Amino acid sequence: MAHSIPALDEEAMATARARQQDLTKPPGSLGRLEDLSVQIAGMTGESTPRLGSPVIVTMAGDHGVAAEGVSAFPQAVTAQMVANFAHGGAAVNALAGTVDAENLIVDMGVAADEYPGSDSVIRKRIGAGTDNIAAGPAMSREEAERAIQAGRDVVAEHAPDADVIGLGDMGIGNTTPSAAISAAITGADAEVVTGHGSGIDEEVFQQKVSVVRTALETNDPDPEDGIDVLRTVGGFEIGGLAGVALEAASRRIPVVIDGFITGAGALLASRIDERAVDYFLPSHSSVESGHAVQLEELGIDPLFDLEMRLGEGTGAALGIGVYKGACDTLREMATFEEAGVSN
Amino acid sequence: MAHSIPALDEEAMATARARQQDLTKPPGSLGRLEDLSVQIAGMTGESTPRLGSPVIVTMAGDHGVAAEGVSAFPQAVTAQMVANFAHGGAAVNALAGTVDAENLIVDMGVAADEYPGSDSVIRKRIGAGTDNIAAGPAMSREEAERAIQAGRDVVAEHAPDADVIGLGDMGIGNTTPSAAISAAITGADAEVVTGHGSGIDEEVFQQKVSVVRTALETNDPDPEDGIDVLRTVGGFEIGGLAGVALEAASRRIPVVIDGFITGAGALLASRIDERAVDYFLPSHSSVESGHAVQLEELGIDPLFDLEMRLGEGTGAALGIGVYKGACDTLREMATFEEAGVSN
Repeated sequence: MAHSIPALDEEAMATARARQQDLTKPPGSLGRLEDLSVQIAGMTGESTPRLGSPVIVTMAGDHGVAAEGVSAFPQAVTAQMVANFAHGGAAVNALAGTVDAENLIVDMGVAADEYPGSDSVIRKRIGAGTDNIAAGPAMSREEAERAIQAGRDVVAEHAPDADVIGLGDMGIGNTTPSAAISAAITGADAEVVTGHGSGIDEEVFQQKVSVVRTALETNDPDPEDGIDVLRTVGGFEIGGLAGVALEAASRRIPVVIDGFITGAGALLASRIDERAVDYFLPSHSSVESGHAVQLEELGIDPLFDLEMRLGEGTGAALGIGVYKGACDTLREMATFEEAGVSN
Repeated sequence: MAHSIPALDEEAMATARARQQDLTKPPGSLGRLEDLSVQIAGMTGESTPRLGSPVIVTMAGDHGVAAEGVSAFPQAVTAQMVANFAHGGAAVNALAGTVDAENLIVDMGVAADEYPGSDSVIRKRIGAGTDNIAAGPAMSREEAERAIQAGRDVVAEHAPDADVIGLGDMGIGNTTPSAAISAAITGADAEVVTGHGSGIDEEVFQQKVSVVRTALETNDPDPEDGIDVLRTVGGFEIGGLAGVALEAASRRIPVVIDGFITGAGALLASRIDERAVDYFLPSHSSVESGHAVQLEELGIDPLFDLEMRLGEGTGAALGIGVYKGACDTLREMATFEEAGVSN
């Protein structure tokens, strides 16, 4: 690994926690914002952090398992949506703008090599989509390692000065490998972690559960080895997201999880280096049923449930808005003494 | 009343709803953001609204009932906190900054006439605090009407171009009149709508419940007459907030409710003109137990629960961030056709 992941800065946390008690409000009245601001102080090593340069990394890849008919959309939509990201027309573009975040679009392995706008996309292509996990491993171990490293490189090359990074994804069929990763790592049953993705009916859902089971049986991923889980039942963009999370954590940059696919990336990262979990922050609770299983495994509670299930980093963007607020209150509020308010 | 409240613009809503179906995402995948953006289209009369000029109106007042020992803080803190708002040191100042909102501070009747920073506060003082509602009415009917009008005037004079208004409050003791207002209007028992405010113990809580009961028995507010409820068991800032809500609604400006005190103001507004409810938007779910009763009466679901209980407009500020995002997606996203994405 390029860098080791530091422990949370206990001194910054203690200073932040003490400051929260001195700020002009009844102690605890800002609820979770207070604890979250203290956590971010520990991550960043700054007792009054500021999230002035957020970055959302949206990674795209295609999936051989799409051939099993597990998605409501054709595979061509992945490249079309990457083109849409490149032109600023997708939901994550709008929501990144809402919270003044930079939005990096990364092609980790879309099936189409060329598409409109591909010049403005960060190209870290590991291949033209993964192999079908229902028939064999998604990729080679070398490709899995390259996917992780590519995610690390995106942070090092394009977001070294980010003060928070939100994760986002795009990939037709990618809830299927995410379900397989979640089942492999948490031990949950395939049916518990499989959801309705972009909108499939009950028949396709049962087919999807069956595909997840087959993928797990065929490939027998080693749950203690994140790289092996990625190799057997993963995806290029999911591995890339794990790499982003690992590199961000090693640089003391908080990582905001979005929905189910980024949750799978976070689980992979946690198996590669469990210290990464200290740097994970939740955003929304996704409609996708396995998301709650992932967050429970990671030990983090979502901030809100707006019944979203889009991915791309849309929930992470809204979460970044909340974290900005948490840090702004910690940093900008006056203490009782400064303001001359009776405590 | 100065203006009547228009019905929601059904045409703008239909256009917005149709557009949500055409945008590049699986239909419904942005969850509540989609419906909320359609509601805001109906309120503003614009099919692709933009919340570029949010305003948070934080109104302060004192309460004679503080003499009953219902708060954890002394009454002097109200004026001290208004001074803190004026100097930008409070939580709402920070969170207004997070979402680029203007924060108007209004003295509706703080007990102290002068305090540091009072020059930069909008002064609409109805009196030097209300009378003790445990002993008689909070104010005269004429004062109640002036409080409502003052709230209207704040919007007309200081926020005519706001595209969304968040409500906020400050007033030591003001959860007690808010509980009485909530009980009077919803019919809920005093114990159900009384909470722990800024942090009181069980003994003070029982005293507070008893004070709320006494206030209701002594004053017998007419639940069908919002002005009478305000007169008997209200507060100057709570009446002002009702006026802000009514004036905003009459101008097609969406109104974001904060916690329990602004919820009481919203209930009053709904009794003065029930059409105002069409313009109400929730933000957080407050720790204060009566807040859920208020929101249920108003028929709106909170967006999130971050265990906050500060007031000031802090939850409304975070809510405005979400509404900005909802409108940004509706307005800025490409349609399937524009982006060349397969639907």
